[in-house]
Amino acid sequence: MSSVMGDKIKLSVFGESHGAAIGCVIDGFPAGITLDDEKIKRDMQRRAPGRDKTATARKEADEPIILSGILNGKTTGAPIAMQILNTNTKSGDYANLALVPRPSHSDYPAFVKCGGNNDIRGGGHFSGRLTAPIVFAGALAKQALEEKGVKIAAHIKQIGSVSDDCFEKNNISEELLDKLAANSFGTISAEKEIEMRAEIEKARLDGDSVGGIIECAAIGVPAGFGGNMLSTVEGRLASALFGIPAVKGVEFGAGFGFADTLGSEANDEYEVSGGRVALKSNNNGGVLGGITSGAPIVFSVAIKPTPSISKPQQSVNLETMKNETLVISGRHDPCIVPRAVPVVEAMAALTLLDIIL
Amino acid sequence: MSSVMGDKIKLSVFGESHGAAIGCVIDGFPAGITLDDEKIKRDMQRRAPGRDKTATARKEADEPIILSGILNGKTTGAPIAMQILNTNTKSGDYANLALVPRPSHSDYPAFVKCGGNNDIRGGGHFSGRLTAPIVFAGALAKQALEEKGVKIAAHIKQIGSVSDDCFEKNNISEELLDKLAANSFGTISAEKEIEMRAEIEKARLDGDSVGGIIECAAIGVPAGFGGNMLSTVEGRLASALFGIPAVKGVEFGAGFGFADTLGSEANDEYEVSGGRVALKSNNNGGVLGGITSGAPIVFSVAIKPTPSISKPQQSVNLETMKNETLVISGRHDPCIVPRAVPVVEAMAALTLLDIIL
Amino acid sequence: MSSVMGDKIKLSVFGESHGAAIGCVIDGFPAGITLDDEKIKRDMQRRAPGRDKTATARKEADEPIILSGILNGKTTGAPIAMQILNTNTKSGDYANLALVPRPSHSDYPAFVKCGGNNDIRGGGHFSGRLTAPIVFAGALAKQALEEKGVKIAAHIKQIGSVSDDCFEKNNISEELLDKLAANSFGTISAEKEIEMRAEIEKARLDGDSVGGIIECAAIGVPAGFGGNMLSTVEGRLASALFGIPAVKGVEFGAGFGFADTLGSEANDEYEVSGGRVALKSNNNGGVLGGITSGAPIVFSVAIKPTPSISKPQQSVNLETMKNETLVISGRHDPCIVPRAVPVVEAMAALTLLDIIL
Amino acid sequence: MSSVMGDKIKLSVFGESHGAAIGCVIDGFPAGITLDDEKIKRDMQRRAPGRDKTATARKEADEPIILSGILNGKTTGAPIAMQILNTNTKSGDYANLALVPRPSHSDYPAFVKCGGNNDIRGGGHFSGRLTAPIVFAGALAKQALEEKGVKIAAHIKQIGSVSDDCFEKNNISEELLDKLAANSFGTISAEKEIEMRAEIEKARLDGDSVGGIIECAAIGVPAGFGGNMLSTVEGRLASALFGIPAVKGVEFGAGFGFADTLGSEANDEYEVSGGRVALKSNNNGGVLGGITSGAPIVFSVAIKPTPSISKPQQSVNLETMKNETLVISGRHDPCIVPRAVPVVEAMAALTLLDIIL
Repeated sequence: MSSVMGDKIKLSVFGESHGAAIGCVIDGFPAGITLDDEKIKRDMQRRAPGRDKTATARKEADEPIILSGILNGKTTGAPIAMQILNTNTKSGDYANLALVPRPSHSDYPAFVKCGGNNDIRGGGHFSGRLTAPIVFAGALAKQALEEKGVKIAAHIKQIGSVSDDCFEKNNISEELLDKLAANSFGTISAEKEIEMRAEIEKARLDGDSVGGIIECAAIGVPAGFGGNMLSTVEGRLASALFGIPAVKGVEFGAGFGFADTLGSEANDEYEVSGGRVALKSNNNGGVLGGITSGAPIVFSVAIKPTPSISKPQQSVNLETMKNETLVISGRHDPCIVPRAVPVVEAMAALTLLDIIL
Repeated sequence: MSSVMGDKIKLSVFGESHGAAIGCVIDGFPAGITLDDEKIKRDMQRRAPGRDKTATARKEADEPIILSGILNGKTTGAPIAMQILNTNTKSGDYANLALVPRPSHSDYPAFVKCGGNNDIRGGGHFSGRLTAPIVFAGALAKQALEEKGVKIAAHIKQIGSVSDDCFEKNNISEELLDKLAANSFGTISAEKEIEMRAEIEKARLDGDSVGGIIECAAIGVPAGFGGNMLSTVEGRLASALFGIPAVKGVEFGAGFGFADTLGSEANDEYEVSGGRVALKSNNNGGVLGGITSGAPIVFSVAIKPTPSISKPQQSVNLETMKNETLVISGRHDPCIVPRAVPVVEAMAALTLLDIIL
Repeated sequence: MSSVMGDKIKLSVFGESHGAAIGCVIDGFPAGITLDDEKIKRDMQRRAPGRDKTATARKEADEPIILSGILNGKTTGAPIAMQILNTNTKSGDYANLALVPRPSHSDYPAFVKCGGNNDIRGGGHFSGRLTAPIVFAGALAKQALEEKGVKIAAHIKQIGSVSDDCFEKNNISEELLDKLAANSFGTISAEKEIEMRAEIEKARLDGDSVGGIIECAAIGVPAGFGGNMLSTVEGRLASALFGIPAVKGVEFGAGFGFADTLGSEANDEYEVSGGRVALKSNNNGGVLGGITSGAPIVFSVAIKPTPSISKPQQSVNLETMKNETLVISGRHDPCIVPRAVPVVEAMAALTLLDIIL
Repeated sequence: MSSVMGDKIKLSVFGESHGAAIGCVIDGFPAGITLDDEKIKRDMQRRAPGRDKTATARKEADEPIILSGILNGKTTGAPIAMQILNTNTKSGDYANLALVPRPSHSDYPAFVKCGGNNDIRGGGHFSGRLTAPIVFAGALAKQALEEKGVKIAAHIKQIGSVSDDCFEKNNISEELLDKLAANSFGTISAEKEIEMRAEIEKARLDGDSVGGIIECAAIGVPAGFGGNMLSTVEGRLASALFGIPAVKGVEFGAGFGFADTLGSEANDEYEVSGGRVALKSNNNGGVLGGITSGAPIVFSVAIKPTPSISKPQQSVNLETMKNETLVISGRHDPCIVPRAVPVVEAMAALTLLDIIL
C-alpha cells in the first residue's frame, strides 16, 4: 500500500483522521517558484469541512504549517514538507465502528489488508481528510503551471438528477476557469447551483447522500507531451484521480458517449488557424494516442454518494461474525462533490506538472 | 514516452506496424508456470485481423516466436522475450499520410513529440497492431492467475445503439467467463451479437466506423489487495487500460451511474455467508478505498469509433501548412471493439497479477 | 533531485539544517510491528552530535516526534511520519558561505542545480543532519528485520592509519553484532578504539579532519533474494549507501582486494553442513550473481574526511567571480566516521527490508 | 528479479546463454539520433569472446539484428529492439553442472530463487554473455552523449599484481579517451599491457583465473546534474555497475584512499579559470553531494577473478546432498577484465544519459 505518487515530483501523503497531524512531503518540486499564500488558502478553504449545509459540520482550521523547502516565500528545490494539526476530533463517535465495517467504506478491506492494525478512528489513513494535503500540493503545482501558461479548473457537472452545462471542449476561456477556481460551489450555469444545493439538502434531510460528476479542464498545455502504454496522459491522470476517495469513473472528451457515435461524427478534423495547426473539434479531450494534441485537456470524474449515511444499514461484526445493524452517528457530508472539486484540480495539476517537467 | 508498464512484472513492448517485427519482453514473470500454447493461440486469434467482416482485411499469421524465458514449456524466471514477424505490410497505402495527419489518430501529436522522426507507416509504434504482444503477455498472466484461482473475461456491452446484458456484478460464474473467453465476439445475450454485427456492417458499408463499451470481470481475487493513492486497484487498472489505443473512459461498478444515485441505494451492505463476510451487492465493482473487497472486480471501458474511415476528412499538410482533404484508402476496422476484448482482458490480467504477486 | 528511496518501502526525507524541522515519511512499512522506543533512541544517540570530542559541539536533542502511522506502540500500516524540531541553529556562522562555496561540499553544484534558490544555511537540505531521519527509519527497519531473524551491525574498520580487525566473513556471531549495535564507537578490537580516538583528536587539534572505512554485516538473510541487472543486492545497497553524505566507495566481500587474487584462492566452495548447503568461505560477501547466497552479507564503505575544516582554503566568490580565501568558523566534526556507523546500518536495514518484503 | 534498468531510458535485457537469442529493448531513447554502425560494431568486438588467448575460445558473431526503433539509420523515438542469435552453443559441456553448482557463480542462489526452473546451460540468463546487449545499448547511449559533448572511456587499471597509470583526474583529454575507446586492451601505459597479458597467460596455463580493476572517466558533463539520496550520481552509477557480473566494488575519485587522508589534503579547492568556476583538484571524482561538479567523472570498479577455472573444486550435489568434487571442462576466460571494459563504459553511458536527459 502506498500513499506516494508521481515520477519527477513525488508526493508522499501521511496522517490519520484522528492522529496528531496530517500532511505531505513534495519531493522534486522545482526551485525558485514564488508562492501566493492567498491562492493556497483559497483552495484549502474550498475543500475544508464545516463551510455550509452541503458539508459535514466538523470544523477544522486546516492551517498548513510549512516545515521545509520554502524560504522567503520561494521554493528552494529541497523537499517541501507541510503538516496540518488535527484539532477537532471526536473519536467517541467511531467507537462502535471498530468491529462493524461501514458499507462501501474501506473499513473491511483495510481491516483485512492491515490485519486489524489500522487506525479505524474516522477512517484513519483512508479518511477523505487526507485530501487536504493533496489540495495543498495541488495549489503549489497550479502556481508552477501558471508560470508555464497552463491553467486548470473544474466545475460540478452533475449532482443527482441536476446537470450543469458542459465545457465547450474546444473553446474554454481563462476567465471562465478563473471564475470557477474562485468559487466554492463552481458551476457554469448559476441557476444550476441553486437546484444542486436543493438536491443535496433533500438528501441531508433524509439522512441520505447523493453522488455526482465533476468536469475539469486544463488549457495551455502544448502538443507533444505524454506517450503510449505506461505514459499516456489519460492513464497517468486516471491513476491519480482514482486515488481520490469516492472516484469510480474517469473519461476523456466524449468518453462513454463515444460508444454510440460514428467515426465521421467523432473525429476531430484539423485546420490551419493563425498559421498553426488547430483542431476543429475536441471530442478526444485534448489527448490523441496518449499524447497531448494542443487542444484543452477535458475530462470528467464520477463521484459516488458518500457512504456514511444516517440510515440504519446491514453489516457484520468482525469479532462475533454475526450480522449486525449499523447506525452511523458522526458528522457527515450529504454530498462530497463540491468539496472534491479542488481535489480533482489538484490531482490534475500535480500530474500535468509531472508530465510537463 | 514509455512502452514499459508494471511494477514487479515489467512489460516492455516494441515494434512498428511496418517494421521487421513487433514483440515484447516480460520481465519478472514467476518461474515454474506451465504454459498452455492453445490458450495463447486462442487469445491471439481473438485479436488478430482478417477474421471476418467486422475487422480489417489485413491478414497476419501473428505467430509468436519465443526467444527466451521458456524451457520445455515452463517459465524459467528469466525475462520472456517474444517476437512476431511483420509479413503483410502495404506501406504504399500510407504514402500520402506522411505529411497529412489522420484526424483523431496520434499522427499529429506523435509528429510534434518525435520531431518528425517517428515511423509513420501504419501508425508506426502507435499502431493498434502493438496490442498483439500485449495479448500474448496477458495470456501468460491469465495462466499464472488461474493457478491462484483468479479468472478473467470480458464481453461487448455496447456497440452503437445496441446494448448487451450486463454482468450480475455480485454473481458471476466461472462457466460464463469460460464461455466468453472462448468466443471471438463475446456477448452475454446471443441475440445481441447478431444485432451488433448488423450495426458494424452498416458502418462498414457507409465507409464509417462505430464505437462501443467492453465490460470485464475478474473473479477469485481475495480481499485486501491494493491500497490508496498511487496504489489503488482502480488507478492501476485504469493506467494500463488507457494504454490501449481508442480507450477513452474507465469506470468501476456503477461508475458514472453513481452520479444519480443515493447512498442508501448505492451502498454495498455486508452479511455473513458460509461463515465468511460477504457483500450483499457489488455496486463498487469489487474495490473499496482502492482495496479489493473480495467481490468480483467489474469495470467497463469506453472505446471510440476507429478514427480511420473511408469518408473524406479535413486535415492539414504539415509541410505546406495548407488545409487539405484527406482520403484514407488502406484496410481498416469498421469497429475495433470485438478485437479489443482480449486486449482489455490482457491488461486486466497483467495488472492484477502484478498487484497480487 | 529526489530524497525518496525504496521500492515497497518508500522513505521520503525532508528538512534543512536551519529550517523549522527535519523528518521523514516512511510509506509502505508493514503493519503490526511492535516498536522498542529504547532501541530507536539508542541509534539516534549514536548519530547525534555533541557527544564527545570526536564530533561537532552543536547539541541537538534530536527527539523524534511521531505524527502518524503508529498507534499504541504498533505500526498501523499507514505511512509513518516523524519530525525533529531544529533547536540549536547558529545561522550567523554561515553568513559568509552564501556566495563562497566550501571546497568538497555540495555548495557549488547545489547552487548551480537550484539556481541559487537553495537554503545555504548549514548546508541546507544537503546537511549531514538529514541523516537523523534515516537513522530513525533504519531503527524501525531493524526491528522489522529482527522479527524475520535478520540482524545488522557495523564497526569502524579504519580511521586514518589505524585499522580494526575485520569481520570473519563466514562466521559472525549475534553477540558481536549486539555488542557493536550498543556502542557509540564500535570496533572489534578494544585497543583500536583508543588509537582511532587519538588519530581523530590529532586532526581536531590541527583544525583538520580525517576519513575512514566502515564495515557492516547482516546475518540471517536466507539464500535467494535479489536478482540481476537493476535488482542486484549489491546495486541496491550501493544506491542507498552512496546517498549518505561523504560515502565515496562501496565494496562487497573481498571487494577491491579481488584485483590481485586468483580464482582458485577467491572462489567460495560449497559443502554439506548439518544437512544443508553451506559455503566454506565468504569472499563474495554473501551475494553471488546479485542474489543472496545465505552467507552473511558483508560490505565496506569508504568515508571521506569531513570537508569542513578550520584551515584557510581557496575558493571563489560566485558573485564577484574572484578568487577568495575561505575560513570556516562554525562547529564541525573532525571525523564523521563514528557518527556515520548507525547511518550505514540504517541504509542497509532499509534496503534489505525492502528486498525481503 | 528484474533485468530492467533506468528511469527515462528503460533498458530491458533478455536471453539465456544457450537459448534462441539474446537481446534488449531500449525504451525512451531520444528520437532523431543518427547512429554510426562502425562504432557499435567496434564496441561489440571489444566485448566479444574468442578474440585472443586472454578470452574464452567460444566464437560468436555477435551480430546485432535491429527489430524496431531505427529507420534509415536514425532513431524514431519508438523502443529500439535488438536481438543476437546464439549460434555456437555446446550445452553438453554443462551437463554435470545442473545439480552441482559452480563455486562463486550464481548457480546455487539462482537455483534457490527460481525453484530449479532456471536454464542452467551456460549460466542461463546469468551468463556474462548477457552483457552483449548492454554493450549495444551503451554504444547507442555514447553516441547520444557525444551530441551533448560528453565522452566516456575506460582503461584497465590493474590485473593481478600489475598496475597501469591512473587518470589524471582533473585533466583528461579527448585524445586519450578516443585512444582507449578504439583499443581492445586499453591501458594508459603501453608497457603495462604487455605485463598484464603475461599475468593473464600465466593464470591460463595454470588452469586458473585472475581479477582486476577498471577505471572509467566521463568528460564534458556540466555541473548541476544528479541529486541527493535516491538520485546521487554515485548511487545511480553504482546501481548499474553492480549489475555487471563479477563487479564487487565501486569507488569515486580517491574512493577507499580517502580513509587515510586528511581533509586539508583531500578537499578540492576552487579557482576562477577562464571566467568560470574550476576545481583545482578532483579527488571527489566529479561528484559532490551527489551532484556533478563539472570536473570529469572518474570511478573505479573491482572485478573478481572468473569463477570458472579448470582446477578441481569442492561443491555439493543438490539432489543427493553429498559433497562432490567438480571439474569444469568448458571454455572459459582466464581473465574477464579486458572484455568487461566496454561493459563498464556502456553502463556509465546509459546511466549518465538517463541523468542528463
